[in-house]
Amino acid sequence: MERRRRVGARVPPLDFDDVVYGIHATVEALAAGERLRAIHVASDRRRDAALRDLLRRAEEAGVPVRFQERPFFARLPFKAHQGVVAVAPPFAYASLHDVISARRDGKKRLFLLLDHLTDPHNVGAIVRTAECAGADAVILPDRRSAGINATVRKSAAGAAAYVPIVRVANLADTIRTMKKAGIWVVGADSSPDSTGMTEADLDRDLALVIGAEGSGLSPLIKRECDFLVRIPMHGKVGSLNASVAAGVLMYEALRGRQE
Amino acid sequence: MERRRRVGARVPPLDFDDVVYGIHATVEALAAGERLRAIHVASDRRRDAALRDLLRRAEEAGVPVRFQERPFFARLPFKAHQGVVAVAPPFAYASLHDVISARRDGKKRLFLLLDHLTDPHNVGAIVRTAECAGADAVILPDRRSAGINATVRKSAAGAAAYVPIVRVANLADTIRTMKKAGIWVVGADSSPDSTGMTEADLDRDLALVIGAEGSGLSPLIKRECDFLVRIPMHGKVGSLNASVAAGVLMYEALRGRQE
Repeated sequence: MERRRRVGARVPPLDFDDVVYGIHATVEALAAGERLRAIHVASDRRRDAALRDLLRRAEEAGVPVRFQERPFFARLPFKAHQGVVAVAPPFAYASLHDVISARRDGKKRLFLLLDHLTDPHNVGAIVRTAECAGADAVILPDRRSAGINATVRKSAAGAAAYVPIVRVANLADTIRTMKKAGIWVVGADSSPDSTGMTEADLDRDLALVIGAEGSGLSPLIKRECDFLVRIPMHGKVGSLNASVAAGVLMYEALRGRQE
Repeated sequence: MERRRRVGARVPPLDFDDVVYGIHATVEALAAGERLRAIHVASDRRRDAALRDLLRRAEEAGVPVRFQERPFFARLPFKAHQGVVAVAPPFAYASLHDVISARRDGKKRLFLLLDHLTDPHNVGAIVRTAECAGADAVILPDRRSAGINATVRKSAAGAAAYVPIVRVANLADTIRTMKKAGIWVVGADSSPDSTGMTEADLDRDLALVIGAEGSGLSPLIKRECDFLVRIPMHGKVGSLNASVAAGVLMYEALRGRQE
C-alpha cells in the first residue's frame, strides 16, 4: 500500500486522451461550447496578450483556470501546448444508428469510414475536412486505429466538436449495415481496376472508405465496397497522404451536389 | 582552441537538413537514384527481414552502410527513424528560370507557391501531392518557411526527388515574374469575395498560391494574385489544413485537362 501513496504529487492526474492543448484549439473548444473542466495555463504566461481572449472566454464560460509552473508542462507527452492545456470531458462518440437514421432534408449524405488509420494528424485533418465538407459523420474502428485523443482534436482545429464521430467494433459489419440502409460504399484505391474519380457516380448517399497509411484498404474491406474509386496519378510516387486523398475525394463527391 | 577539440566524439557529425530517415523513405531515395553518401543502420537490425530490400539496394547502388549502436540514434532530433538514417547530398533546388522556361509539350502548366508555410509535414504532403498531380514545380520562400529538410522529405514519401523545388528570396517578385511569363497566379483564400473553385477557370497555365497555416495568404501576396479562389465551406470551422486545401485545388485544376 505504501508504494501506491504518491507523496508530494502536486500535479493532478490528466488522462491524455481527454485534453485539448494549444491556444487556438482551446479557444475553439470554448467557442464550440465544450464543457471544459479546467484550463491549466503556464503562470509565466499569465499576462500574455495572446491569452487574453482565451482567459476572457474561460471566465464567461465559468471554466476554472489554474496557473501552473513549468514542471507541470514538462511532463506532458506533447510539446506544442503553448502553455495551455484544458481538461475536457471524455469524448462523446455518436452512435452508428443515430447518424445513419438522421434525416438531412433531402440532401445527399456523405460519410467517411477510416480503415485503421494510425496517424492522429491524418485522422484530425480528415475530421476537419469532413466538417468543412458538411459530411454527416466520421466512422472509425475502435482497435488498431487512432481514437479521438488530444493530438487528433488539435489537428482537427475544433471540428471534432461539430461533426459526429462514431467508433465501431467491426468496419466490415458497419459497411454491410450502411449498404442495407441504401448508402453506397465506395473505397479509395489507387489500383488501375478502380474507377477514375471523375467518371464515378458519387452523387448519391455515399460512404467513402479511406485506407491505412502505407498499406491502403484491407482486402476484406475492399470486397465489401460497392465499387472502388481512384484519384488520377501522374507521377512516380503513386499515392497521396491519406488526409489529402480523403479531401480530394470528399470535394469530388460534393461537386454534383447543390451548395 | 582546446575547447573546440571534440575528444572521443565517435559519431560523425550529421547535418539534419540533409538526411533521409525511416525504412520507406530511404528505399524511395535509393529507388529514385539519389546519391546517398552513407546509410547508418542500427546494428541490432542487421538481420531484420524488413531491411533486406534496403540493404540489397544500398549494395547495388554502392552506398556504404555503417552499423551503429543505439546511442547514435538516441541523439537524433526525430524519433521515427526505425533504425535507419541516410546521409544525403545537400538538397538540389531547381532554378526559377529553368522551371518557368521548361516546355511541357503543349500541356498546361501547374505550379505551387507556398506563402510561408512553417509545418514541414504540410510542406512534405504538398510536395507529394504536387508530384502525384504532375505539377511542374513547388516554389517556396527561403526565409520564415520550412525548407526541404529530413521531415519534409519523409512526409513527401520520396517525391522531393522527382518534382523540382525552387527557393526564392521574394515571393511577390516571383509572382510578377510568373505573370510576365503568361502564367495565371491564383491565390487560395476562403473569403466570400473569392471565386468558388468550381466556377473559376483553372484550365490554363496556373500557379496556385497556398497561404500559411492559421494566417492564410499575406495581404501583399493577395494583391499580386490575378484572382482568388475558395473551396466551398459547409461547416463551422471554415478552413482546411493547408496540405488538404492544396490537394483539393490541384485536383480541381486538373479536372479540365487531358489525363
